[in-house]
Amino acid sequence: MSTTRVLTGITTTGIPHLGNYAGAIRPAITASQNPNTESFFFLADYHALIKCQEPERVRESVRAIAATWLACGLDPERVTFYRQTDIPEITELTWVLTTVTAKGLMNRAHAYKAAVQENIDDDNADPDRGITMGLFSYPILMAADILMFNGEKIPVGKDQIQHIEMARDIGQRFNYLFGDTFTLPEAVIEESGMILPGLDGRKMSKSYNNTIPLFEGEKKFRKLINKIKTNLLEPGDPKDPDDSALFDIYSAFASPEQIADMRKQYENGIAWGEMKKVLFEFLNEELREKRETYNTLMDDPAQLDAILKQGAEKARDYAAPLMADIRKKVGIGPIAG
Amino acid sequence: MSTTRVLTGITTTGIPHLGNYAGAIRPAITASQNPNTESFFFLADYHALIKCQEPERVRESVRAIAATWLACGLDPERVTFYRQTDIPEITELTWVLTTVTAKGLMNRAHAYKAAVQENIDDDNADPDRGITMGLFSYPILMAADILMFNGEKIPVGKDQIQHIEMARDIGQRFNYLFGDTFTLPEAVIEESGMILPGLDGRKMSKSYNNTIPLFEGEKKFRKLINKIKTNLLEPGDPKDPDDSALFDIYSAFASPEQIADMRKQYENGIAWGEMKKVLFEFLNEELREKRETYNTLMDDPAQLDAILKQGAEKARDYAAPLMADIRKKVGIGPIAG
Repeated sequence: MSTTRVLTGITTTGIPHLGNYAGAIRPAITASQNPNTESFFFLADYHALIKCQEPERVRESVRAIAATWLACGLDPERVTFYRQTDIPEITELTWVLTTVTAKGLMNRAHAYKAAVQENIDDDNADPDRGITMGLFSYPILMAADILMFNGEKIPVGKDQIQHIEMARDIGQRFNYLFGDTFTLPEAVIEESGMILPGLDGRKMSKSYNNTIPLFEGEKKFRKLINKIKTNLLEPGDPKDPDDSALFDIYSAFASPEQIADMRKQYENGIAWGEMKKVLFEFLNEELREKRETYNTLMDDPAQLDAILKQGAEKARDYAAPLMADIRKKVGIGPIAG
Repeated sequence: MSTTRVLTGITTTGIPHLGNYAGAIRPAITASQNPNTESFFFLADYHALIKCQEPERVRESVRAIAATWLACGLDPERVTFYRQTDIPEITELTWVLTTVTAKGLMNRAHAYKAAVQENIDDDNADPDRGITMGLFSYPILMAADILMFNGEKIPVGKDQIQHIEMARDIGQRFNYLFGDTFTLPEAVIEESGMILPGLDGRKMSKSYNNTIPLFEGEKKFRKLINKIKTNLLEPGDPKDPDDSALFDIYSAFASPEQIADMRKQYENGIAWGEMKKVLFEFLNEELREKRETYNTLMDDPAQLDAILKQGAEKARDYAAPLMADIRKKVGIGPIAG
């Protein structure tokens, strides 16, 4: 039976939080265990440079994200797990694709258009004010990320669908000019991506500054859980589980039986303080082992580098011959052929 | 005494003609022999992809240009002579520079603006019609070509001055954000670049279709020289050397004494047929040995590849550690540092 190649990029500008874990990391790792898929996961650190000009932050993020995914059970033997900047073929393909991409296509990218609109709304004389070529042309880099490995299914959020369509357009254009080379990728929309509430009850998100880091030390972790917003209901008062961040977070990790049981405890008026204690202990247990692995990996960057390097070698086993074929097709590389 | 690093890119979309030789190749090779300069010459085949989607043409041009420069005396031991596509650091640096380049800078590039103006003049609804991202963003690739080797002096035609200024801007921006890294290049305008007339008396240029290939076979070469435009003056009529393509071409290769002597022959009414014979024999003698070397090299592409590869190794001895430093500065590459 043939397998489907699934390719997932992970942006490296932050430190994973509980919401990332429940909404993205855990389901992706589960999906990677499907024997009918062949999964490629990469740390998108070339992309990080578009948004972040703080080298320490980019580096720390790569370190934390690599350690997190491995600690959470991503199996680098089974999947291909690599750092984008370890694959020199990526930027070469980016240039080759740049030469076949219409500027008009980039003009229509949502992210660019939104940035222009913001300038117009702010009455800036220059609609391109503050916009870098990185922001403008990153759909080409993203196309190279995908086409370099002939990725078939690309799990993305709704805001990324257009980029997959652009990768298709660019791949199609190359195929038309130089002969069949690239598989045209398809977006797989993460329909029911689980959304976890943050400390303030809104969606847990770096931009709201309401996150709970996934692998915080126990003490700090308990403190943060105690900070999660509740209401003024007293112990003994029946509480609404469907309007409780604590319940939502609990449910994201508990079994159906545990969830049903917790619903009863809410009806019976469990105290918020008690619920926080239960949640802390439950999550702490759930994460303890992973956290230990995480800490071990974080303390051994050379080991992380070695794992990523091995992944890059696997990735390049695929990328290098494909790039050689592309070079031949466009007319660069050895004269003797 | 310290040397100046001079960097010259050679576009690879055509086959060198006599005008290229007199106007660009010969003076550049002479300049490379100056002991106070350290010369880098590269075949710009990534640039060729912007204009040319015919792989055979790109490859043949690389072959002919490499063979031509070597046959004309470029010493690969003395200079660094390489093919752009043999340096993976180039496209990586291109991406890094892309993230620090303002889109507004590219909007102002002459070549892009001219293409837009053409669309406007043609009443195209889309001013970006037919414009690729290659055309739009190639000043960034050119900046990478230069900054990757900390080129100090860049000999260019007037139409290229803006690109060198852009390379300065981009390098300066990087230096500001991440610390002193790049030497800011300076354009050296080729003031008295010799212009040779073509078959029809206009400037010899591929776009006028009036060129004489530099290393044509003797028979064809004689035929082409016989086709050079003259006027209706009879043998014995005094002729104006300052209005004669034949005289201009002769002068581009002859010594001052030979030129002075030829002026006298014009006054004395040398027949056009005789002058063509003299010019052919003179040039044929001038080029004979070079042509033989050229033909030998053209018949041995593996040898050309080997020479270019050796040049690439020399170039990468410089580019690789600089790129490692750049990676470190922006925060990509090994976590362990």
